[in-house]
Amino acid sequence: MNTDRLNRLDAWQLVQGLARRELRAEDLMRACLDRVAEREGEVHAFAHLDPPTALAQARALDAGALQGPLHGLPLGVKDLLDTAELPTGYGSPLYAGHRPAADAAAVALCREAGAVVAGKTVTTEFAYFHPGPTANPHHTGHTPGGSSSGSAAAVADRMLPLALGTQTAGSIIRPAAYCGVVGYKPSWGRVSRAGVKSLSETLDTVGGFGRSVRDVALLGAVLLGDARLAGVAHEPGGQAPRIGMCRTPQWAQADADTQAAWSVAAAALSPQAADLAEVALPDGLGDLIELQKQVMAFETARALSHERVHHRDRLSERLRALLDEGLAMAGADHTARLIRRAQARHSVGALFDRWDVLLAPSATGEAPAGLGATGDPVFCRTWTLLGLPCVHLPFARGRLGLPVGLQLIGRWGHDHQLLAAAHWVHQRLLG
Amino acid sequence: MNTDRLNRLDAWQLVQGLARRELRAEDLMRACLDRVAEREGEVHAFAHLDPPTALAQARALDAGALQGPLHGLPLGVKDLLDTAELPTGYGSPLYAGHRPAADAAAVALCREAGAVVAGKTVTTEFAYFHPGPTANPHHTGHTPGGSSSGSAAAVADRMLPLALGTQTAGSIIRPAAYCGVVGYKPSWGRVSRAGVKSLSETLDTVGGFGRSVRDVALLGAVLLGDARLAGVAHEPGGQAPRIGMCRTPQWAQADADTQAAWSVAAAALSPQAADLAEVALPDGLGDLIELQKQVMAFETARALSHERVHHRDRLSERLRALLDEGLAMAGADHTARLIRRAQARHSVGALFDRWDVLLAPSATGEAPAGLGATGDPVFCRTWTLLGLPCVHLPFARGRLGLPVGLQLIGRWGHDHQLLAAAHWVHQRLLG
Repeated sequence: MNTDRLNRLDAWQLVQGLARRELRAEDLMRACLDRVAEREGEVHAFAHLDPPTALAQARALDAGALQGPLHGLPLGVKDLLDTAELPTGYGSPLYAGHRPAADAAAVALCREAGAVVAGKTVTTEFAYFHPGPTANPHHTGHTPGGSSSGSAAAVADRMLPLALGTQTAGSIIRPAAYCGVVGYKPSWGRVSRAGVKSLSETLDTVGGFGRSVRDVALLGAVLLGDARLAGVAHEPGGQAPRIGMCRTPQWAQADADTQAAWSVAAAALSPQAADLAEVALPDGLGDLIELQKQVMAFETARALSHERVHHRDRLSERLRALLDEGLAMAGADHTARLIRRAQARHSVGALFDRWDVLLAPSATGEAPAGLGATGDPVFCRTWTLLGLPCVHLPFARGRLGLPVGLQLIGRWGHDHQLLAAAHWVHQRLLG
Repeated sequence: MNTDRLNRLDAWQLVQGLARRELRAEDLMRACLDRVAEREGEVHAFAHLDPPTALAQARALDAGALQGPLHGLPLGVKDLLDTAELPTGYGSPLYAGHRPAADAAAVALCREAGAVVAGKTVTTEFAYFHPGPTANPHHTGHTPGGSSSGSAAAVADRMLPLALGTQTAGSIIRPAAYCGVVGYKPSWGRVSRAGVKSLSETLDTVGGFGRSVRDVALLGAVLLGDARLAGVAHEPGGQAPRIGMCRTPQWAQADADTQAAWSVAAAALSPQAADLAEVALPDGLGDLIELQKQVMAFETARALSHERVHHRDRLSERLRALLDEGLAMAGADHTARLIRRAQARHSVGALFDRWDVLLAPSATGEAPAGLGATGDPVFCRTWTLLGLPCVHLPFARGRLGLPVGLQLIGRWGHDHQLLAAAHWVHQRLLG
């Protein structure tokens, strides 16, 4: 295996070489750290790095038995997830230098499968909107998106093949879109959140980023404990899915680049899909965006109670505003919103009797200019609220040359089918 | 207020006196700590105590403004919940002396409402079955139940008026039954689990213990952020509920004491309830107990990955067996189980169109003899699996003179109605 190309290969190719011992984990880690050394001064993807430890762990894997499906793979970990060996700051000065007692479950599962934590990646403050220093590697004057800013940027910039993130509103799909990588948010409730700093009890979801659908499927196999996922790119036939194209009630916010990607996708997929048509959300669901915002505000105001009560002055103004808003909400109204969500889940779920997957915008357009904000998760809030699995597929460029793509959404619990369909669709979109 | 009686009053009465400044928080805390000093050598309810800090915080409340609905109330905190000022051991030698960076959300909310953490109470190992040292205060040769052993025992033994617990299988309702206190498990998903050591992603629920329904309702008002709950005992009329008496498919495991309590309850409630009849679970739900066990095994094996991978030899044999069992399960089967549970929630939910609450056994009988095991959660697993709110009501004694009672179960999200019905029912059962 030609090590010059290591930073361009996807995780799937790398683990083949690692498993056959044609590629040494140490060499791969060194190639990644070299790329980090070269680019980090511009991209600022990392909250913490410990190259000697990462190299030592990679060397130990080279010397020992094969560990599992991620053997020897360098992994970025969003700094919202606890790590016992690296500081965990949750994107807040409150937790500078914080040392958790244990790895988050998602981290421990990846390490058990053979991954090596290469570093902690930048998150916005407690995964809300106040940005970290990360820049979009395609244009460092533009945001990488948030809250999983560093993970998306590190994968996009070929610093790392794979990285963990979390989504509460649009924190995986949006940065994946802005950075031009594949992002995967699993079905809500399927991945343990043990050791993840909690924002929203009924929304937070652990997922991740890769260069290809098969990469995030490999990660998903480990996180969900479902080995089938690792094989989604290699199933016989690669059955053509039935695709419902859902502009969503927020379509007016999709700019010319997203609209162009939409047309390109329709033209590319229509001839080959088992079925493809425009589909609307059931009537009466126009307010799901607002519902997601309200659920998130109520829950975050409770989850961050310790910080809200004892360290209010060290929280960003925008986070304080969210906490104040959530704290003022009546519990009875929150319960009513959760019941309304359950009804919406039921009615949207019925769409999947007719369609295997929905195709929808991931973001309004290219990554916005400036690092003071992380963009709008408007096209993600509905699907996160409903707990549905989502995969972002990058395949186009916008007017500024920045990445543009679309997301596929699956039925709850059908992550396997979603990822298989995403692989099929992505192959065709990439032509 | 006569301070000799402080340890016998319920939290509701105490907060009235505290709010009117007729009772000093320091005096109340001292009365509690005196009782702890007298009894702890036999009961072993506490994992950690820091009397000087608790007294200092109580004094500060006496000197300052009224904080909220729990102003000045001593609170026990199950040692599965993080506390920044007291060590948090999760019932495992692995975490002896562990110091979390922040209070769990439930703890921070109670402290914000004016509660003073009086101590950390004993939990079984990671809230699974391996017991701590706690004894049943009614008979120290018998188990207090688990996993919230210390919280139930401390409230039962009049060491504390109120305590936090968690339930994944039967860890609030069962110890409440064995110790003869009121236990409340809220609707799943309504209370933030931030800072609670995670066992089972889709089952763990934070709740608590008190001497009366109005006590746990007061706690619930703070935890759920729903002020209506605090008033459940004082609503005009105290409307008579429609009560479905559900023996459950596990009825054969209810012993003579539980069966006697069942008959007493039927006779006491039947004349006054708006409606009362025996009700069966919908057909095809006979396996929910097994389903709960499987969901818990799969999820716990992931949540405790760090401990499972790095510290296996310091876990109890029973916990290791659970983790091994869960790790061997296929992810596809787990997803199928969660889908089946969603269907069961739907069909059981329909019972609440006809009945306001269900009455069901809490435990097989009195607390079993011996401290080597914590009893069987068989009568709790179904309701925890379904995510329904539950309240245990103590009202009888068994053949050995130990407490016996029954639980009321409500519709998801209807914690307010459940607690109001529980108050109504408890008044009638206590005659």
